[in-house]
Amino acid sequence: MSKLVGSIKEAIKLAGLKDGMTISFHHHLRNGDMVAVMVLDVISELGIKDLNVNISSIFDTHEPFIEYIRDGVVTGIETDYMGGVVGRAVSEGIMNKPVIFRTHGGRPSDIINGVSPIDVAFIAAPTSDCMGNCTGKYGKSACGSLGYAFADAMYAKKSVVITDNLVDYPLVDYSIAENYIDYVVNVDKIGEPSGIVSGTTKITKDPVGLVIADYAARAIEASGLLKDGFSFQTGAGGASLAAAKYLKDIMLKKNIKGSYGLGGITSYMVDMLKEGCFKALYDVQCFDLGAVESIRTNPNHMEVTAAHYASPTAKSSAVDSLDVVILGATEIDTDFNVNVHTDSNGYIMGGSGGHSDTAAGAKMSMIVAPLSRARLPIVVDKVLCKSTPGNTVDVLVTQRGIAVNPLRQDLADAFRGAGLPVVDIFDLRDMAEKLNGKPNKPVLGDKEVAKVLYRDGQLLDTIYNVPVK
Amino acid sequence: MSKLVGSIKEAIKLAGLKDGMTISFHHHLRNGDMVAVMVLDVISELGIKDLNVNISSIFDTHEPFIEYIRDGVVTGIETDYMGGVVGRAVSEGIMNKPVIFRTHGGRPSDIINGVSPIDVAFIAAPTSDCMGNCTGKYGKSACGSLGYAFADAMYAKKSVVITDNLVDYPLVDYSIAENYIDYVVNVDKIGEPSGIVSGTTKITKDPVGLVIADYAARAIEASGLLKDGFSFQTGAGGASLAAAKYLKDIMLKKNIKGSYGLGGITSYMVDMLKEGCFKALYDVQCFDLGAVESIRTNPNHMEVTAAHYASPTAKSSAVDSLDVVILGATEIDTDFNVNVHTDSNGYIMGGSGGHSDTAAGAKMSMIVAPLSRARLPIVVDKVLCKSTPGNTVDVLVTQRGIAVNPLRQDLADAFRGAGLPVVDIFDLRDMAEKLNGKPNKPVLGDKEVAKVLYRDGQLLDTIYNVPVK
Repeated sequence: MSKLVGSIKEAIKLAGLKDGMTISFHHHLRNGDMVAVMVLDVISELGIKDLNVNISSIFDTHEPFIEYIRDGVVTGIETDYMGGVVGRAVSEGIMNKPVIFRTHGGRPSDIINGVSPIDVAFIAAPTSDCMGNCTGKYGKSACGSLGYAFADAMYAKKSVVITDNLVDYPLVDYSIAENYIDYVVNVDKIGEPSGIVSGTTKITKDPVGLVIADYAARAIEASGLLKDGFSFQTGAGGASLAAAKYLKDIMLKKNIKGSYGLGGITSYMVDMLKEGCFKALYDVQCFDLGAVESIRTNPNHMEVTAAHYASPTAKSSAVDSLDVVILGATEIDTDFNVNVHTDSNGYIMGGSGGHSDTAAGAKMSMIVAPLSRARLPIVVDKVLCKSTPGNTVDVLVTQRGIAVNPLRQDLADAFRGAGLPVVDIFDLRDMAEKLNGKPNKPVLGDKEVAKVLYRDGQLLDTIYNVPVK
Repeated sequence: MSKLVGSIKEAIKLAGLKDGMTISFHHHLRNGDMVAVMVLDVISELGIKDLNVNISSIFDTHEPFIEYIRDGVVTGIETDYMGGVVGRAVSEGIMNKPVIFRTHGGRPSDIINGVSPIDVAFIAAPTSDCMGNCTGKYGKSACGSLGYAFADAMYAKKSVVITDNLVDYPLVDYSIAENYIDYVVNVDKIGEPSGIVSGTTKITKDPVGLVIADYAARAIEASGLLKDGFSFQTGAGGASLAAAKYLKDIMLKKNIKGSYGLGGITSYMVDMLKEGCFKALYDVQCFDLGAVESIRTNPNHMEVTAAHYASPTAKSSAVDSLDVVILGATEIDTDFNVNVHTDSNGYIMGGSGGHSDTAAGAKMSMIVAPLSRARLPIVVDKVLCKSTPGNTVDVLVTQRGIAVNPLRQDLADAFRGAGLPVVDIFDLRDMAEKLNGKPNKPVLGDKEVAKVLYRDGQLLDTIYNVPVK
């Protein structure tokens, strides 16, 4: 017995894919992913139309989606993140149905609970055996964790593994088990290695970024949370990584033994694990080769499923035990609402990912951002898109001081006690406007191009089209 | 946030357990398990009645179940195996509802598919953190794999972890993840270590057993299946283990590199892994300390869930790729049907476990048994209870020769070609009767005390009461 079929075409036919169904993909191959487009190419060739695509994130490598949307092959998209290339086209109104944005925790929750059922899941697997035991840890396209793919594999009616490294049964150290997999396809190449690990920015060298990072690390120190058992997540942006670096220095100096690092994992977090800042890493996605190497070799570096990471309907998830998360923002308003979906012109160029999940779970959620970027203020009266609700955002760290959500006077007091510059968020907005002028709000159309669902499934915001000039 | 509650009583109340509900237990602590009785003690104290108990196996340590059945606390039992003590009471008719016997593969299948829903699962966990990430690999009550407990934890409405080794969050190298667990209870002791690893018999020294083992190993060699990639499961009986020993010798001599060993795992299988006879072990249950040590330290020794092991409704399970399984029998009839549920007096003293799952999956399923035991023939006209259907049983190996199912002439030819003594199963029956006399069939009552479901849920046989003299 073997589930190996000769081609993607054969797997699609065997899976019974038909017009109007929902297919799914995961994004661990990031901007190196070749599988989603490869599958859509075949689907298009087969003349199958009107598909709903549930994909955990869309990168610029998925630009051919635009063509398949225009052709009517893809008529629905559900995702947690959409890069600027596809985002621009969506913002310009190429889809009839609005994109559904979820969070990295809301997505598995809705899949598991049957809210967003999948007909056929395609699992890009850097290594698999002929029965579908598969992993991201090994192979020429190794990406490390397959955390986001578990719910797809487990709950889709049919699950197809697509691999470029077929090994003898049974695969040792598998992630997703054969009991969830229907078909296995062996292809030449599932991903472009340079793109797979494109996610990590280097630690910033920009002086503004370093000031922010320093404030952030000292604010964490002052919060009272930085003690033995400390748990932490950070994004992969330059200032966030710099903050992690400063934080590591404090932890080493004070000999603080944290419990776990969480999230998309970078080499910087791996270093913290190695140096004893954490007992463990919980990894839902590897951002770079150092993380891939570590998850393969260090038993304390553990793969977690997206549900275990952040599902709001799981009996608990790792974000619920999180002490501190450092997050970015494209905009933050005076109510502490954060936008990570659109740019200042209203174009889609991101998404929540785990942003609102970790903000909701962490004891302290911290936004690090400069006052302005490219002459546009980051602190604004009202965000263009509410990605993460302000009542879950505790702190905004800028180069001009730290604004604390009025709900968290305890933190403001602690920061002041530590001599940190606590400022009112309205003052930060004023400073930003003084530096850059009050920005003109973009004039948007009245076509709904995306709906932003909060992690619990409630509608958080609606994104409208940007009129094409 | 913590799921730690002060007592089992508190967990039961929080879980909302009520009269008439279904609770579940797993059996990895084997005859050392203290959790099932501990929980029933509290349930009884709380005055909760009429419970259906779904437990993967019942051992003699569960003798107090009898009292709880008499008291009306337990009114239904679903299990895959029932030892002689509780089995005798059930056979004597103490329950009003027949026991439901499933297989180790059928049980998770029915739980996952909603055929046998569980209200509250109790997971005996040798190590857990306060959020319910738990494992059997560590702790004073370490039992190794928790394979049978996954379906319970994942699909019960409420899941309670009961541990005697609570560790800091997050547990590294967890098996069952927190996202499935509602409550955690820390108790003094969940198991009696001597009983936990009571399962392994030593390799037989009995000359009859050694002849059987020699024939069995040579039959496997002759079958054509023993080559690179070979996969194998064996029971933990003395003759089965001796056969494995002889098989290992052949594999080492011929330098055959097998793929995987499967099943309940003993030190003998661990030795085969270490010596290169297998690339990997798939372990749903550890039978001894050597297996526990190995699953903890050797990455090639992998825990598998019961669904991955043997579920007939999984998209595949490990038994589907199995080459050879060696199994025992209390009786086998001339149609090759096997009884592992009742003794020759009709008393329940066993169950299918993975017997019929592996027989169905393996390319060659082999029963090893002496012609007679305690002056009773093993080969009979008709088994008292059909546990495994004859059309899935290929070979019977006795000290007086090897009987081959007429469906498998290919094997009979191969065995003859290798000079092995192939005999007709009717001749074996005649020899057995000649040695021991034709046994009197026990006179059974007309009360249904148990229903034996095949792995697909179909009724395979009904067990009737043994009248009390």
